Amino acid sequence: MEPPDREVYAEAERYQLRLTKPAGSLGRLEELGCWVASCQGVCPPRPITSPRIVVFAGDHGVTGRGVSAYPSEVTAQMVANMRAGGAAISILGAAAGASVRVVDIAVDTAPDGSGGAGDGTDGSGADEDDPTRYKIRRSSGSIDTEDALSPEELIAAIDAGRAIAAEEIDAGGDLLVAGDMGIGNTTIAAVLIAVLTDNEPTAVIGRGTGIDDNAWMRKAAVIRDAMWRARAVRSDPGALLAAVGGADYAAMAGFLAEAAARRVPAILDGVVVTAAAMMADRLAPGARRWWVAGHRSAEPAHTFALERLDLEPLLDYGMRLGEGSGAALAIPIVRAAAAVTASMATFPEAGVSERAADDVGATPDGRDLLDAT
Amino acid sequence: MEPPDREVYAEAERYQLRLTKPAGSLGRLEELGCWVASCQGVCPPRPITSPRIVVFAGDHGVTGRGVSAYPSEVTAQMVANMRAGGAAISILGAAAGASVRVVDIAVDTAPDGSGGAGDGTDGSGADEDDPTRYKIRRSSGSIDTEDALSPEELIAAIDAGRAIAAEEIDAGGDLLVAGDMGIGNTTIAAVLIAVLTDNEPTAVIGRGTGIDDNAWMRKAAVIRDAMWRARAVRSDPGALLAAVGGADYAAMAGFLAEAAARRVPAILDGVVVTAAAMMADRLAPGARRWWVAGHRSAEPAHTFALERLDLEPLLDYGMRLGEGSGAALAIPIVRAAAAVTASMATFPEAGVSERAADDVGATPDGRDLLDAT
Repeated sequence: MEPPDREVYAEAERYQLRLTKPAGSLGRLEELGCWVASCQGVCPPRPITSPRIVVFAGDHGVTGRGVSAYPSEVTAQMVANMRAGGAAISILGAAAGASVRVVDIAVDTAPDGSGGAGDGTDGSGADEDDPTRYKIRRSSGSIDTEDALSPEELIAAIDAGRAIAAEEIDAGGDLLVAGDMGIGNTTIAAVLIAVLTDNEPTAVIGRGTGIDDNAWMRKAAVIRDAMWRARAVRSDPGALLAAVGGADYAAMAGFLAEAAARRVPAILDGVVVTAAAMMADRLAPGARRWWVAGHRSAEPAHTFALERLDLEPLLDYGMRLGEGSGAALAIPIVRAAAAVTASMATFPEAGVSERAADDVGATPDGRDLLDAT
Repeated sequence: MEPPDREVYAEAERYQLRLTKPAGSLGRLEELGCWVASCQGVCPPRPITSPRIVVFAGDHGVTGRGVSAYPSEVTAQMVANMRAGGAAISILGAAAGASVRVVDIAVDTAPDGSGGAGDGTDGSGADEDDPTRYKIRRSSGSIDTEDALSPEELIAAIDAGRAIAAEEIDAGGDLLVAGDMGIGNTTIAAVLIAVLTDNEPTAVIGRGTGIDDNAWMRKAAVIRDAMWRARAVRSDPGALLAAVGGADYAAMAGFLAEAAARRVPAILDGVVVTAAAMMADRLAPGARRWWVAGHRSAEPAHTFALERLDLEPLLDYGMRLGEGSGAALAIPIVRAAAAVTASMATFPEAGVSERAADDVGATPDGRDLLDAT
């Protein structure tokens, strides 16, 4: 996967020095502005005008093992809540000026009459707004004893995620967010992250939606058994997703890889999306350079995944909701970084005096920075 | 100073449990939402619709000692840049949906013809939009050897800040931000914070706009001499502001105290605003409960001030620009916290199943929380 444009990044670093502020005084916001410019391939960057959130909903067979505090039917209920505008991601998306789309990839409900009857991965002739248009299957195999997906379902799910990213980008999306909705999905994330970062089940297990100690023990046993099944295929990202992932995970991985391939930056959310992102970076090495981490989740596995992807989260508020909520909260920060880099006045434009010439720090003409790059 | 409403805070905590998310899953965002509700005195809280940023501009006599990398005339130039919309705060304010007003409290320029001739603290008959309407004086005394302000100027400056806060609130402001603009102003902040937190000059001194080692030594000497002068009046916040503060500092302190008195929440910015906030909390004890810290500045003194005020910053990006920039970046986070608390659907509204009854954690009916409060 081709990285964001290094020359534009360096150009943006020099450009930052011309803006009416002391060199480096916006700290990490300057780095983010340079990164947006390098993704767009242009300096100054364009303002971000159309951030788009896609929530990938799917159920997981492991909920039958009692690993969650909520019953599986909550997934479909929350999909309806999101579509009605009442979920956290509905509010946070609107607050960030982002669109919120919910896609049913593997919710454990029968395809409804208006949809593509469960096989509609190509979406031909289907209603654009139908959330089941990309539905791959109902739920997934219980990964402690069986594969989550068939090889055919895996391919279809990755393709669905890629097609959804393409649709969002073609519609003008210039900053993408993947969110997740699915009871049981932190169990899957814990397995994928533990396998890929060589951690023990007890190091990656979290309380998810808020499980008690008995559910914690059941979850730990499922993670241990699934990790045992996963070891044989750990070096093959596709086989790993089929063995212990799920259609929603495969679709999120396809979505994030496609965003990178199309040179559109993305913000990662919590443990579920970041586990999918690790898979995307395995399927499309280098894709991670097109992402920033929106936040650090309260789920312990998330930190292992962020370290492996070499991403430093923008926020750390102990959030653990999923849905894309932590990434949505970070959208205004990335937008602000692009905006200051794009729109601030330069010293000559504003008629502002530059710093004294005998000063020894980085100089506004950027020579120091040029030498360093 | 009366604190935000504790009963409404507790009511908001219980209300959070009815919203369609696992209990506590929005982490710090939930605390922020409860805080906004308690400031407003109503649960669910009202959405924040009119955040307002006021930048207090002033020069400082200590710039004559060579403590800054920029010449003093940059203050007036940057005021013009802000009014023209080209400064960082102009862009970040607009990105956050906030108004940005710049007031000349003590810029080292002659009052211009359109203004109130330098004594216009009552604003009577003056142009509302005239940035010099509240001008107290030109610059300040060099605090290493003389008082910054006369007692009369001190009172006028505090009153100016209070009047400005009242205007912004009367115009609909429901979240206030104070920003600062003034070459030399981190020297003042370092002195005030060192005196009030019992720190040595070398512990509080920072690079400000980016000074070299020679300027650093000059700045350290000024801080040391000013601290010597300040010790005799350290227990009297007004006298301390007159001795080693400045009219911009006194106005910011008045602004923040008035916001608290009128029960309007505020976001603090970096080291300069937080030093003024410490003074406001001394003038009006308890005012700090009406504030959150927007970010942690790269200036070392800022952390001491935040600890003294018992505030944990929302962002930590190594910013050191001032102008209100770090607080502006945090506005969308506070707005998002209010919005989710105000607008999410409850479990019954959305028809979403609640967690299993045998689970031992906090329950959605809020009984655990009620017991705890």
